[in-house]
Amino acid sequence: MLKLKQNIYDDEVFFKEYTAVRKSGTTYNDFIEQPAIKSLMPSLEGKSVLDLGCGNGQFASYCVDRGASKVLGVDISKKMLELAKQENNHEKIEYLCSPIEDLDLSNQTFHVIVSSLAIHYIKDYSNLIKTITKLLAKDGEFIFSTEHPIVTARKDMDNWVKDEEGNKLHWAFDNYQEEGQRKQRWHIDGVIKYHRTISTLVNTLIINGLNIKNILEPQSTPAGLEQMPKLVNERRRPSFLIIKAKKGL
Amino acid sequence: MLKLKQNIYDDEVFFKEYTAVRKSGTTYNDFIEQPAIKSLMPSLEGKSVLDLGCGNGQFASYCVDRGASKVLGVDISKKMLELAKQENNHEKIEYLCSPIEDLDLSNQTFHVIVSSLAIHYIKDYSNLIKTITKLLAKDGEFIFSTEHPIVTARKDMDNWVKDEEGNKLHWAFDNYQEEGQRKQRWHIDGVIKYHRTISTLVNTLIINGLNIKNILEPQSTPAGLEQMPKLVNERRRPSFLIIKAKKGL
Repeated sequence: MLKLKQNIYDDEVFFKEYTAVRKSGTTYNDFIEQPAIKSLMPSLEGKSVLDLGCGNGQFASYCVDRGASKVLGVDISKKMLELAKQENNHEKIEYLCSPIEDLDLSNQTFHVIVSSLAIHYIKDYSNLIKTITKLLAKDGEFIFSTEHPIVTARKDMDNWVKDEEGNKLHWAFDNYQEEGQRKQRWHIDGVIKYHRTISTLVNTLIINGLNIKNILEPQSTPAGLEQMPKLVNERRRPSFLIIKAKKGL
Repeated sequence: MLKLKQNIYDDEVFFKEYTAVRKSGTTYNDFIEQPAIKSLMPSLEGKSVLDLGCGNGQFASYCVDRGASKVLGVDISKKMLELAKQENNHEKIEYLCSPIEDLDLSNQTFHVIVSSLAIHYIKDYSNLIKTITKLLAKDGEFIFSTEHPIVTARKDMDNWVKDEEGNKLHWAFDNYQEEGQRKQRWHIDGVIKYHRTISTLVNTLIINGLNIKNILEPQSTPAGLEQMPKLVNERRRPSFLIIKAKKGL
């Protein structure tokens, strides 16, 4: 079978490990990425939301709780969507199994499009942003997080350089302008991510007519620093980049 | 005497070395930064230009050659402005000796404000951007270059990690979220620069009502790669960040 899109979340081993870690509530997502992405969300009262890479639907539920009129959650992984339908089932939430870059929603538009840590899996960022721009209503907002280019730049992604006692000396950085595939072990071997420069990430939005409203390089919440002391290293290099852009001023 | 603003360019040793290097025509400026900043310049026909940190006035002359109606070049260094008046004297160019963060031009506004590699010397970026926003005419454009935060992040600014034979293994990165002073030897000891994150650089513009139009992380021109082979390392980590922002859409 020709494997067109990477779908690690349907891998048995990955799915088991990943869902266990996420369930723990003590992850980079819980303490860094999710608080930051939520801080950029506009009022959702009566708004339609598209969640690209919705996973277990937790964020879709959050949007409904905040007054969203409807949420469409899209994910490539059947397993994640099964979980979503169990754990975050709601009459205002619809789930769709599709690679986010192949979305065909004809003339639907959304007030808010959100994507949490999915875009670094997508090969053709330019085309994805074109699609997203079309799916945004006038004055619609697009908020997404991605692994920070500082993290994905180096081809050898073993990036903390340590001394003999294991102390982190510095972060090894390299290969910044060589955009494209990076292979990494993350629960399983050979997870593919795509590195893009900050200028590519930002300018592609602008070229498509979106206005940049905010860029975050978030650090851990205080609770995170208490429960996961290693998150102090976010001060040394940021794991995530979060961008908010708007169709209109 | 209380030294309020750093003015390395009036240091005898620095001035001599710096002007000699710039005169050579084979510098990072010539092959990376200047071509990139010029690529972002709008048509200057009939426009007024403010050049913050104008140095020897070369860019002011470039603007006049491209049709600017007047250029005001501002620099903290008397020596650089003496040079400017010798080398780039023109009836349409006025030079003003002032720290760029203390500019007091009452109600003047400019169509284009440009600043080449000066902003990383300025302590209070937020206040500088406030001032610049006031000095921009409606639909005015602000284009500036600064040392890339990837370069200024680590407090110990000796950043290429080399093996025993001097091969560059990777770039050492650290201290990203600790904004503020960095001390470096550059022709002379103790040159002070200010590190700011990408999110600070961008969001401060947005908060002041400017719209981000372009972000560049430029590489060397082909001529640069020929004359300064080490510029190939710009592919590994970018030296400069260039931002274009607009007052209006």
